[in-house]
Amino acid sequence: MHPEFEAYLRTHTNLTPDVIRNISDLAVTRTLRRNDCIFSAGEICRHKVFVVSGMLRTFSESADGSEHILQFSPENNWALDVESYDKQVPSMVSLGAVEPTKVLYWHKADFNTLLSTIPQFRSFADQIIARNIYYSRQRMLMMLSATPEEKYEDFVREFPRYLLRLPLRMIAAYLGISLKTLTRIRHAQLQRS
Amino acid sequence: MHPEFEAYLRTHTNLTPDVIRNISDLAVTRTLRRNDCIFSAGEICRHKVFVVSGMLRTFSESADGSEHILQFSPENNWALDVESYDKQVPSMVSLGAVEPTKVLYWHKADFNTLLSTIPQFRSFADQIIARNIYYSRQRMLMMLSATPEEKYEDFVREFPRYLLRLPLRMIAAYLGISLKTLTRIRHAQLQRS
Repeated sequence: MHPEFEAYLRTHTNLTPDVIRNISDLAVTRTLRRNDCIFSAGEICRHKVFVVSGMLRTFSESADGSEHILQFSPENNWALDVESYDKQVPSMVSLGAVEPTKVLYWHKADFNTLLSTIPQFRSFADQIIARNIYYSRQRMLMMLSATPEEKYEDFVREFPRYLLRLPLRMIAAYLGISLKTLTRIRHAQLQRS
Repeated sequence: MHPEFEAYLRTHTNLTPDVIRNISDLAVTRTLRRNDCIFSAGEICRHKVFVVSGMLRTFSESADGSEHILQFSPENNWALDVESYDKQVPSMVSLGAVEPTKVLYWHKADFNTLLSTIPQFRSFADQIIARNIYYSRQRMLMMLSATPEEKYEDFVREFPRYLLRLPLRMIAAYLGISLKTLTRIRHAQLQRS
């Protein structure tokens, strides 16, 4: 029994209680401390992961140790490296906890069975993939066209609830700007307000 | 009859000649001059588009008139704005021809019928979507972590055949660097070689 996950499915789908229980029963719980990784770059992403509480980040590290963040996944979101999961090849990114985090995960074979036997769950999963695609395109356009100030303002608008939960260096690593630039932007904003 | 498209499907799928003809028969041909647009930002993307010859680019324009390029789609590739097409809402980007281009297009209702009645075509379409997702993640990582030099080298490696077909300003607009920086990088490379 995973009450938070079952509440999430009740809110976002019309699946019957039996089907929800069926999906939930195949999940395994895992608790992560801050900085624990579900998988690291070079390993294979073998599970679908749902964040019950806390927050994960998908990131890569450059040779010089600097971190680049592809995605934040807070509670009630899914996380995985899609290419590694689909093809079962080593991932180029790591999936780690930003803060103490509780996740559920499903083995790929189990999850595939759920998708193929529950068409309504399949179409819900397709919607989530589509939303991720829209967001990626949006973010790519932002990266190509926006100034650092605009990138930060967009982040504040999109994710107001993340601001207090994330160290500044991670926000900078997500926006693709230096910590120094981010600090300067925030300082200028404070002075204006 | 669209022989190039039918050859493309024969190469990439195991669909029977009858099914291939069925898909092909629903397509409409359109010829574009350089800079013609299939749709512009603010319009709705109503068709699936396949590039028979030539090249399209998906782009947006900033208020100051500068162009940002999300994607190039040369011959034997598909192009659309996925969010506008899925939801039939105005697109944030435009789809225009880089050079004289011949495309085929399908009305959304026709294409959906094909997808739902030909499972093998559906799974082929899913593969193409997956490949786009992998590539987007890859490109996002590159944007976050790479220097302008690395971005350009990666582009040359990935798309050697595009180099001679694209004006430098479009390569710069795709890489998210200024034309001046791109010119400097190319100049430095020429001097080294």
